[in-house]
Amino acid sequence: MSPYPSSASPTGHWRHLRVDRSAGIVTVTLDRPDRLNALTFGAYADLRDLLAELAREGDTRALVLGGAGRGFCSGGDVDEIIGATLAMGTGELLDFNRMTGQVVRAIREAPFPVLAAVHGIAAGAGAVLALAADFRIVEPTARFAFLFTRVGLAGADMGAAYLLPRLVGLGHATRLLMLGDTIDAAEADRIGLVSVTAPDGGADGAAAALARRLADGPALAHQQTKKLLTAELDMPLAAAVEMDAAAQALLMTSADYAEFHAAFTGRREPRWEGR
Amino acid sequence: MSPYPSSASPTGHWRHLRVDRSAGIVTVTLDRPDRLNALTFGAYADLRDLLAELAREGDTRALVLGGAGRGFCSGGDVDEIIGATLAMGTGELLDFNRMTGQVVRAIREAPFPVLAAVHGIAAGAGAVLALAADFRIVEPTARFAFLFTRVGLAGADMGAAYLLPRLVGLGHATRLLMLGDTIDAAEADRIGLVSVTAPDGGADGAAAALARRLADGPALAHQQTKKLLTAELDMPLAAAVEMDAAAQALLMTSADYAEFHAAFTGRREPRWEGR
Amino acid sequence: MSPYPSSASPTGHWRHLRVDRSAGIVTVTLDRPDRLNALTFGAYADLRDLLAELAREGDTRALVLGGAGRGFCSGGDVDEIIGATLAMGTGELLDFNRMTGQVVRAIREAPFPVLAAVHGIAAGAGAVLALAADFRIVEPTARFAFLFTRVGLAGADMGAAYLLPRLVGLGHATRLLMLGDTIDAAEADRIGLVSVTAPDGGADGAAAALARRLADGPALAHQQTKKLLTAELDMPLAAAVEMDAAAQALLMTSADYAEFHAAFTGRREPRWEGR
Repeated sequence: MSPYPSSASPTGHWRHLRVDRSAGIVTVTLDRPDRLNALTFGAYADLRDLLAELAREGDTRALVLGGAGRGFCSGGDVDEIIGATLAMGTGELLDFNRMTGQVVRAIREAPFPVLAAVHGIAAGAGAVLALAADFRIVEPTARFAFLFTRVGLAGADMGAAYLLPRLVGLGHATRLLMLGDTIDAAEADRIGLVSVTAPDGGADGAAAALARRLADGPALAHQQTKKLLTAELDMPLAAAVEMDAAAQALLMTSADYAEFHAAFTGRREPRWEGR
Repeated sequence: MSPYPSSASPTGHWRHLRVDRSAGIVTVTLDRPDRLNALTFGAYADLRDLLAELAREGDTRALVLGGAGRGFCSGGDVDEIIGATLAMGTGELLDFNRMTGQVVRAIREAPFPVLAAVHGIAAGAGAVLALAADFRIVEPTARFAFLFTRVGLAGADMGAAYLLPRLVGLGHATRLLMLGDTIDAAEADRIGLVSVTAPDGGADGAAAALARRLADGPALAHQQTKKLLTAELDMPLAAAVEMDAAAQALLMTSADYAEFHAAFTGRREPRWEGR
Repeated sequence: MSPYPSSASPTGHWRHLRVDRSAGIVTVTLDRPDRLNALTFGAYADLRDLLAELAREGDTRALVLGGAGRGFCSGGDVDEIIGATLAMGTGELLDFNRMTGQVVRAIREAPFPVLAAVHGIAAGAGAVLALAADFRIVEPTARFAFLFTRVGLAGADMGAAYLLPRLVGLGHATRLLMLGDTIDAAEADRIGLVSVTAPDGGADGAAAALARRLADGPALAHQQTKKLLTAELDMPLAAAVEMDAAAQALLMTSADYAEFHAAFTGRREPRWEGR
């Protein structure tokens, strides 16, 4: 529970996502398998607000994002979204694109690691959701396609032109975002898009296992690591080093750090509390 | 044609480059094969002003840069340039180095993709021209040498110390820029310098084919993708996401985006106009 | 000798490091082989002050950092450091973490290349020292472990969350810093952590040879290359290009640049002075 609860009440039911919770792990499943989990306005909005609620509540230690059926996510729904946006005015277009971008910001700024379990296609906004995650657990069947230019839009959707060069370098990022070509899991691995390789059908299981390891570990240390990785992409060296010093000094007063020392000197395994 | 023509007249003939135009594609050939296309003061100046004119005119959709004869470009001409710079005063030295840097800025900021077709040696300023391009189409014979320290200069020439770490990481960039060693096409590919691999003798053809694909495609989407990739290297995440939202909202009012939807619902191929 | 000596006198003896000097090369050996060269408060402080003195004196042209015995460095000493920090107050914790960060800043800002010769384990702060170096000369036995979360601390120690994504990309950096897993030399090479591969037992020798090549070469050009690589990670493109122009104009007035031209036209090897 949040140490600072407001009057806002948690949402009992997410209509556009399947959300399961288990001992600190939240599993979010994109669950429209007949449409390859194409994202609707509702799904974007639910992702945005779910991530905000989880950050506020403060008891999530890892989040797994996966897709039901034959693939991870085919991106924004062409029928629902592209058709609708053609009829929108300026302000409405900005609202929609800010919402999708907010999902990516919420993933990058979440106070817990986010794991994308990817099998089959991750296309368009689906590819960016995987890109924004901290870990990509990837099956051999996985394919990534930043296909925005294929629909006449900029490859820079939802922060992709910020994030992709910082994972795979400007050369590969330009190729993927400008051409919108599909790459397979082996190519994704070669250029730095894959965190963990899973066997066929094994991404959900491997992601769940890694999420369990993270949730049962020193979760405050994981949280700080993620926050600093995110922040220091945008900071000069001298400021980053000073920020690290303050963050590390703080964590040296944490229960988990003391527990490590007690376990080490007692020749036993540490019992992490995550605080 | 530019929607906002000034009194400036286009240059009829570029004396230091071979420039061919064909339906939105400009092909620039470094054409001093007896000197491995070593760059002269005139070639730098022509590149700077050609790129400025093309950006102003607004009807270029892709530019291919290649080299005649046995290699791509051996860099600044030792006889002409190094000798002359030794006799220059402070202001002249700054003028020269600003001009070469301006070529790289003009490539990165051009409102169209730039493709470098590389066979044989790309050395010194030649390596940086290839580095600054959006795509490097590379033959097995290609070799890259950021050899500036070999002549007693800083490896950070024409923005190389900015660009190279953002393509291949700081470790490889330090090695290449500090030592000035030559790497072959396989090593360039391994570290992220190669966009497309071409067969022996095939770089010009592969670059022309890719330029044609880009020019015949949604060129406004390509242009925006490039502009945002360039800008977002220098922006924090939150600003990049906001910039993407505005850019994408704008493109959702473009002719090509509507055309995609019409083609998709009509089950036909889109006819891109590039606007 | 520094052209601007102050009243500060050089340190005659470094108690916590082995320091050898030879014709412009300083070799620093972490020399507690019975503890896998675990770092003590004294070792951090000596590294900080040694690097400051060398920068001030101005006659170092390359520095090699290696470890005695079975490995490079196992990181901060658990017995000495973790125990002591548990008893520290807020200000003392900040002092300690600022000191370790200062070592990394001093390596990155040193006016000479730093070469890490790595065999066996490079863990925790040891991994960050290697990461901060300009060159990592790595034996097949080498292993890297950014194991900070394993002791309950943030993976962002001593600037690691700034540096690692800039060498290996955000995806690999997140995996290594959040999980603290050990990677072997082959994996380090695959992701971009290895500058030079050395044979078993050969890292010290290969590092010494490369340091000699750097020290005997155009050292001022090397120094400027390093300074600009470090600075331009934190600069936008336009500023970086302007900085390069000024730096290159300056180096075009250097003795080594004139010597290159004289040697080239005289068809002989240049005799570098490093100024």
